[in-house]
Amino acid sequence: MNYKMIFYTIGQVLLLEAAILFVPLIVSLLYFEWWSAIAFGIVAVIAFAFGFLFTMCLKKHSHLIFAKEGLIIVALAWIVVSVIGALPFVIDGCIPSYVDALFETVSGFTTTGATILREVGGAMGYGMFFWRSFTHWIGGMGVLVFIMAIVSRSPDRSMNILKAEMPGPMVDKLVPRTRDTAKILYLIYIGLTALLIILLICGGMPVYDSVVHAFGTAGTGGFGIKSDSIASYNHYLQWVIAIFMVLFGINFNVFYLILIRKFRLAFGSKELWTYLSILLVSVALVSYSIYPIYNNISDVIRHAFFHTASVMSTTGYTIDAFTEWAAPLAKAVLTMLMFIGACAGSTAGGIKVTRVMILFKKAINEFRRTLHPRRASVVKFEGKRIDEETLNGVGSYLAIYVLSFIVIILLISFESSFSFESNFTAAASCFNNIGPFYGNAVANGSFANYSAFSKIVLTFAMLLGRLEIYPMLLTFNPYTWIKK
Amino acid sequence: MNYKMIFYTIGQVLLLEAAILFVPLIVSLLYFEWWSAIAFGIVAVIAFAFGFLFTMCLKKHSHLIFAKEGLIIVALAWIVVSVIGALPFVIDGCIPSYVDALFETVSGFTTTGATILREVGGAMGYGMFFWRSFTHWIGGMGVLVFIMAIVSRSPDRSMNILKAEMPGPMVDKLVPRTRDTAKILYLIYIGLTALLIILLICGGMPVYDSVVHAFGTAGTGGFGIKSDSIASYNHYLQWVIAIFMVLFGINFNVFYLILIRKFRLAFGSKELWTYLSILLVSVALVSYSIYPIYNNISDVIRHAFFHTASVMSTTGYTIDAFTEWAAPLAKAVLTMLMFIGACAGSTAGGIKVTRVMILFKKAINEFRRTLHPRRASVVKFEGKRIDEETLNGVGSYLAIYVLSFIVIILLISFESSFSFESNFTAAASCFNNIGPFYGNAVANGSFANYSAFSKIVLTFAMLLGRLEIYPMLLTFNPYTWIKK
Repeated sequence: MNYKMIFYTIGQVLLLEAAILFVPLIVSLLYFEWWSAIAFGIVAVIAFAFGFLFTMCLKKHSHLIFAKEGLIIVALAWIVVSVIGALPFVIDGCIPSYVDALFETVSGFTTTGATILREVGGAMGYGMFFWRSFTHWIGGMGVLVFIMAIVSRSPDRSMNILKAEMPGPMVDKLVPRTRDTAKILYLIYIGLTALLIILLICGGMPVYDSVVHAFGTAGTGGFGIKSDSIASYNHYLQWVIAIFMVLFGINFNVFYLILIRKFRLAFGSKELWTYLSILLVSVALVSYSIYPIYNNISDVIRHAFFHTASVMSTTGYTIDAFTEWAAPLAKAVLTMLMFIGACAGSTAGGIKVTRVMILFKKAINEFRRTLHPRRASVVKFEGKRIDEETLNGVGSYLAIYVLSFIVIILLISFESSFSFESNFTAAASCFNNIGPFYGNAVANGSFANYSAFSKIVLTFAMLLGRLEIYPMLLTFNPYTWIKK
Repeated sequence: MNYKMIFYTIGQVLLLEAAILFVPLIVSLLYFEWWSAIAFGIVAVIAFAFGFLFTMCLKKHSHLIFAKEGLIIVALAWIVVSVIGALPFVIDGCIPSYVDALFETVSGFTTTGATILREVGGAMGYGMFFWRSFTHWIGGMGVLVFIMAIVSRSPDRSMNILKAEMPGPMVDKLVPRTRDTAKILYLIYIGLTALLIILLICGGMPVYDSVVHAFGTAGTGGFGIKSDSIASYNHYLQWVIAIFMVLFGINFNVFYLILIRKFRLAFGSKELWTYLSILLVSVALVSYSIYPIYNNISDVIRHAFFHTASVMSTTGYTIDAFTEWAAPLAKAVLTMLMFIGACAGSTAGGIKVTRVMILFKKAINEFRRTLHPRRASVVKFEGKRIDEETLNGVGSYLAIYVLSFIVIILLISFESSFSFESNFTAAASCFNNIGPFYGNAVANGSFANYSAFSKIVLTFAMLLGRLEIYPMLLTFNPYTWIKK
């Protein structure tokens, strides 16, 4: 195990975080929030000190690392960045409990959007709200893709990190060199975010609000600045955000292919069409189910589309208290979408459409095989044959996914007195990086009513889901650290 | 497709059912329930007529059938037997609605134990209650294992049916010839049931009650004759039933090996120990969770053990309104056990311990492989290496299992106004052949409040779960019947 390289990389991540913290610091200054600015300053200094220490002390050594180290770096980076990133909230005083602050920050960096704030509106100043949403944006494409784009690496090593970093089972390499890949992904990400900000401002949303909500949408996070999320903005703004939630759930490969004018390849993606089909069928079912609540076809469609897009893209913005809808079919559909999530290679969480497709094809294939045992069976995806190893990998992922999910539910059931519905959807929401949940534990869409223990479990669940389970398991497995 | 052979076998099944119907007919006569006796008589005549027609008209033809036909025969047999078996309830008048009667009968033959009776106690006469529980016992080892034992078959054909019939992914052949296997399983089943009846009678339970509850326990069904299930019987009787629920959840291989004094082999079964370990850990967790409700260590353990055994063995007997426990941890544990179920090769439902073990091992294996890609990886089970095909099969089963489960929940969410908890656990309970469920749709543990549509969906779910999905999918797939 190359401990030195692990800590060296974590050091670099911390230096980067120190730099990033200057953005909310400046925002705080612009709004004359001196104490918030000082809080960011203090934490930036702390991050810089540790980062400097790690990188200086460990500079000269082997750069060679393997998959194992790559996965551990990703997991540790996410944890360390969150542990430090939670400090401004505590120092500022807007979130006095460190456990709460950590929950909120992990929720940010994992682009979950689950909050412990009882009332979002007015809970903190401009600078703090900016930081809270900024963590979504940073988390969105991944701290490490970001790092890769600006720090030179050996190609082999970068791929190892990317493997754990990129959501979904199969990310086509856009271009051979990882650093360039990261740059392109990053540019698309920035471009779409900028476009969204412009569209929101044009629709009459204040500039600050536009930036914050664009961050939340781009990262498929869901943090807002008002207690009623997006409900108080006009219909145009709600539609823009809804459509961009769908867009940010699409595999970034598709945008890249459009960018280089390979339209046929871009629109030939089966994953894309499956994603959109599931979305539209779900919108139809949800519309049917909530019709008696709104009684107006345009309102029904707007609510159905917005919340379906929000849940499927794992963003979590709301325009109504949809978690309290008396519409069991809508709830069942949305709960199912919580698990499916959006496309691989997007900023969304969940199992991912690709995996669901592969699992589905695999199951059908297996079913056929029980009838014709001697028939050769091949599972194809996007026109290419999927090898046995990938198939097995996806199958095993589902098994370990279900297992992790059960453990999370059991743990949060330990001392809380909430309904099964609450615990089930709270676990699903955090594990799939979505945000909202149903049941009697919800108060204004907040996780505030859960105990500190449950919050820690759910914090872990968010990290587990975001990093697709393995990196976290590896990092918290004692054998990883003991064995030679 | 050998249509003739399919209908010929269904004809035989009907003849058998006609014979079986004489048992409740005699019970009705013993209790002077003339109208019930006539109802059974009428239905026996109907079953005989159809059975005679099918077997007579289709006697001379090829006996050769393949896996496909085997699976279809199993599915059709279960459906036909239930469709006919529901008639006595309607003719007698104790269940006026045919949809309800079919739900109840399928619940019986699939050994689910879910009921549409609002109040069980006094809902029907002795003969009808006997028939209701008898369906559990018949269903328990499977109508077709029963048939195999008395009707001579070609060995190949029997294996094809057995493949779909026997629960779980891997049933060791006890003895080479299928007919003998069926006989041995049947003798063990009768022996254990007889022992249970004797133990219950010795404990002071009336003879009729003992027989009925032994049927419910042996089939891991759960139908009783009182509204409070087993609650009004003494503690000794509750313990006896609890222990026999655990026993009937064990792979029948183990009993066979004990019978032929191969104790080392019998007690060397990893599945057995995993099953018992999960059971005991769950009892501990449930005890911890429900302690505040009962406040007395012996009551706590009795309730925890009884209900854990009842859910894990997928029986569904209760000794208290455990579905209304204000104990979220206990509920979470029991919900998890609903899915795991008991051992393969038992009368229980659910995913089965064997499959869970294989999935778990597969997942760990896959996790290791991501770290050491070049390492050869072998998944072992009970000391034997599991081939890739079985591994894939189990993985695909999980995928299609989850998918079916989602569809069931979506369908029952369509028009009912019940909580997510209700719909989720109702679906889980029927699909895994258990019986009880939680939530606001429950009234005295009854499914009565669900609509006719939902009852039909749940009826299908019970059959789907009992036959391990594939046979039902095949039978209801139009291509099966159209294609050459």
